Amino acid sequence: MRVNKESTLDLNTVRLIVTDLDGIWTDGGIFIDDNGRELVRFSVYDGAGVVLARKAGLRLAVISARHRPAVQHRCRDLGVDELRQASADKREDFLEVCRKLDVTPAETLYLGDDLNDLRPMALAGGAVTVPNAAPEVLAAAHWVTGRRGGEGALREAIEWLLRATNRWEAVIAAFQPDTVR
Amino acid sequence: MRVNKESTLDLNTVRLIVTDLDGIWTDGGIFIDDNGRELVRFSVYDGAGVVLARKAGLRLAVISARHRPAVQHRCRDLGVDELRQASADKREDFLEVCRKLDVTPAETLYLGDDLNDLRPMALAGGAVTVPNAAPEVLAAAHWVTGRRGGEGALREAIEWLLRATNRWEAVIAAFQPDTVR
Amino acid sequence: MRVNKESTLDLNTVRLIVTDLDGIWTDGGIFIDDNGRELVRFSVYDGAGVVLARKAGLRLAVISARHRPAVQHRCRDLGVDELRQASADKREDFLEVCRKLDVTPAETLYLGDDLNDLRPMALAGGAVTVPNAAPEVLAAAHWVTGRRGGEGALREAIEWLLRATNRWEAVIAAFQPDTVR
Amino acid sequence: MRVNKESTLDLNTVRLIVTDLDGIWTDGGIFIDDNGRELVRFSVYDGAGVVLARKAGLRLAVISARHRPAVQHRCRDLGVDELRQASADKREDFLEVCRKLDVTPAETLYLGDDLNDLRPMALAGGAVTVPNAAPEVLAAAHWVTGRRGGEGALREAIEWLLRATNRWEAVIAAFQPDTVR
Repeated sequence: MRVNKESTLDLNTVRLIVTDLDGIWTDGGIFIDDNGRELVRFSVYDGAGVVLARKAGLRLAVISARHRPAVQHRCRDLGVDELRQASADKREDFLEVCRKLDVTPAETLYLGDDLNDLRPMALAGGAVTVPNAAPEVLAAAHWVTGRRGGEGALREAIEWLLRATNRWEAVIAAFQPDTVR
Repeated sequence: MRVNKESTLDLNTVRLIVTDLDGIWTDGGIFIDDNGRELVRFSVYDGAGVVLARKAGLRLAVISARHRPAVQHRCRDLGVDELRQASADKREDFLEVCRKLDVTPAETLYLGDDLNDLRPMALAGGAVTVPNAAPEVLAAAHWVTGRRGGEGALREAIEWLLRATNRWEAVIAAFQPDTVR
Repeated sequence: MRVNKESTLDLNTVRLIVTDLDGIWTDGGIFIDDNGRELVRFSVYDGAGVVLARKAGLRLAVISARHRPAVQHRCRDLGVDELRQASADKREDFLEVCRKLDVTPAETLYLGDDLNDLRPMALAGGAVTVPNAAPEVLAAAHWVTGRRGGEGALREAIEWLLRATNRWEAVIAAFQPDTVR
Repeated sequence: MRVNKESTLDLNTVRLIVTDLDGIWTDGGIFIDDNGRELVRFSVYDGAGVVLARKAGLRLAVISARHRPAVQHRCRDLGVDELRQASADKREDFLEVCRKLDVTPAETLYLGDDLNDLRPMALAGGAVTVPNAAPEVLAAAHWVTGRRGGEGALREAIEWLLRATNRWEAVIAAFQPDTVR
C-alpha cells in the first residue's frame, strides 16, 4: 500500500469498508456463456481478508453497478453486511448503506477503481484504489494497493488497516503455532 | 496509445468504431466445455468504455470471424449498434456495416489484431491495434494501445479518441463529485 | 526452489507431502457461477508431479478450509491418499491424517500459503511456501518455490524433493527415449 | 523462435505437425467444475495458425495423455487430421499416427513440453518446445518458442515453419488489402 494523496483520516475511526466489485474483488474479467450466464473469478486471499476484518469488528458493504447472482453467493458466504447490485447511482447507494448500518460517511474506507466510484470516494473518510485504476480515480485516491484487483488487493487493504490500527496481532493470534503448543 | 504510423485522419470526423472481437475485446482465449459450448472472458473496463462512447454520440460495430452466443449477449447489453459474427469476409461485412449505419469507411476507426483484419483496416479512416498483434497488423496500424486485448485495450482507444476530440470532460462530468455537491 | 530458513530436516525421511489447496494447487482464484457452483483451475504440471511422487513411493494428502466437489474429482483422479475439505482446524486435520497414514509429523513436508497453514507448518518436518504467500507464512517456511500456486509450484516442490533424494533419475527413466530404443 | 540445439532437419521436408495438447495449446490450466466436467482454454491465435498450416498443405495431429470432450470439439472445428486422447504411450501413438497419415517420423515436427513428450520428440524430424517446459524437454528440443503455451506458441511455430519454407507470403496473400483493391 502506498500513500498517494494526503489524508486527514484517523484510521482508528473506520467502522465500515465499502467496496466496488469489478476491478477490486476481480481483475475486471467477466466470463459469459452461451446462455448469457456469468461466471465471476474471486480471490481466496480477499475472502480470508474479509473474514479477518469481520473478526476485528469491521463491517463490509459492496456496491456494484452490475447485477450477478454469483456476487450474491460470494458475499453471503463471507458475511458481507450489505450488498447493492445494479446500482445506478453509487453515491445514493453509498449514503443509504451508511444510514442503514448507522455509520457516517466519514467513518468509512472506500475501495473503487473506475469513474462511477468517484462520487462515493469523495464522501468517504478515506479512499483506496488499485494500481491499474482509471487515471481520475488514481488522482482522487488517498492510497493505492500494490496488488491488483482479483489478486488480493482487498486483502491487502484490510491487512494494512488492521496493522495501522494495531489490531493485526490480536486477529491472527489464533493462527499462531505458539499460542496452541 | 502510441503513434505507430503517420495518419491523415482528423479524429473529429470519426463517427463509428468498428472492432474485431477476439484479441481486442478478449485476450484471445476461448474456453470450451465438454459439450462444445464456449465461455468468453470480457473486460468490465471495455464495457464502461463502450457506454462512454455511446454517450458521446459515437456508434459501435463488431465484426467477428467466429460465432458465439455469448458475444451476442454482451453486445446487446452494451448497446453495440451492429454485430456481425461468423464473418467469412470482414472487408465485405465492414462495407455493409458502413452502408447500413450511413457512415463512410473514412469516418470509421477500426480495431483489429490479426491477418483477417488487414483488409477492413486498409479501408477505415484510421486503424488501431494491440501490442501483441500479428506483425503484419502491427505494420499496418496507425496507433497501438498500451493495454492488451481483454485488459482494457478498447476502453483505452475510446478514451483516447474522446480526449483527442475534447469530448472527455463532458462525458465524464456526471461522474465528478464536484458537479453534484 | 530457494532456501528461506535453516532446516534440520533430512529430506530422505519424508514419506508424506501434505498440501493446502487454494494458492498452492491454484493461483487463489475461485470461479463462481450464477447458481453458486464453483470452477477450479488446476495445473497439468502439478498433476504430472503428483503421479511422479506416487511412483517414487511418496504419499500425498490435501487439507483445505473450503469445500468443493471439483477438488474431490481432481484428487481422486490423481490418487491423492487423503483429502480433507472444509477443515476448520488444519492442525487437527494434519495430525489425524498423519495418524491415519501411519506417518509422524516429522516425516512430512507441508506446503501452504496462508495464515491457517501456520499451525500445521510448525508441526511438519519441513515447510514450503510460494513466493506470493502471506508475510507470516513466508517468514515461517524453510523453502520457497520459484513458481506460483497454480503455475506448477507443487510440481516444482515434488521434483526438487525427488532430485535431492536421488530418486529423480529412476522415476523419469520410463520417459527417456534411450531406454526404449 | 530461438534455436536451442543443432538440427539437421530440412524444414522443407516437414509434412506433418504433431503436438501435445496441455501446455502447448493451453497454458497447462485445467478447469474442473462441481460435476467433474472440464473446461479448456484455447487461443484464437493458435486456431488461426492451424487454418493457415492446412492451407499450406501441412497436416496436423494432436496426441494427449488426458481425455476431454472439449479437445475433440476444438480439433474437429479446426480440421486437425488426427486426434489421440488418453494416450498411455505417446511414442506408440506417434508412430501409429505417422503410419495412418503415410508420413515418416523424420517428416514430422513435434511440439511438446513435458516428460511424456520426450520419446516422440526423439523420433520426430525436429522438436519444438515452449519456454516454460520441463528442463529435460528444454534440453532435448531443437527450437523454443517465444510465446508460452496457450498464448500463441503453436501459431508462432506454424508461422516460423511457413516463413522458413517460403510459403508464408502465398498463404497470407488472401488477407492482403492490395490483392483485392
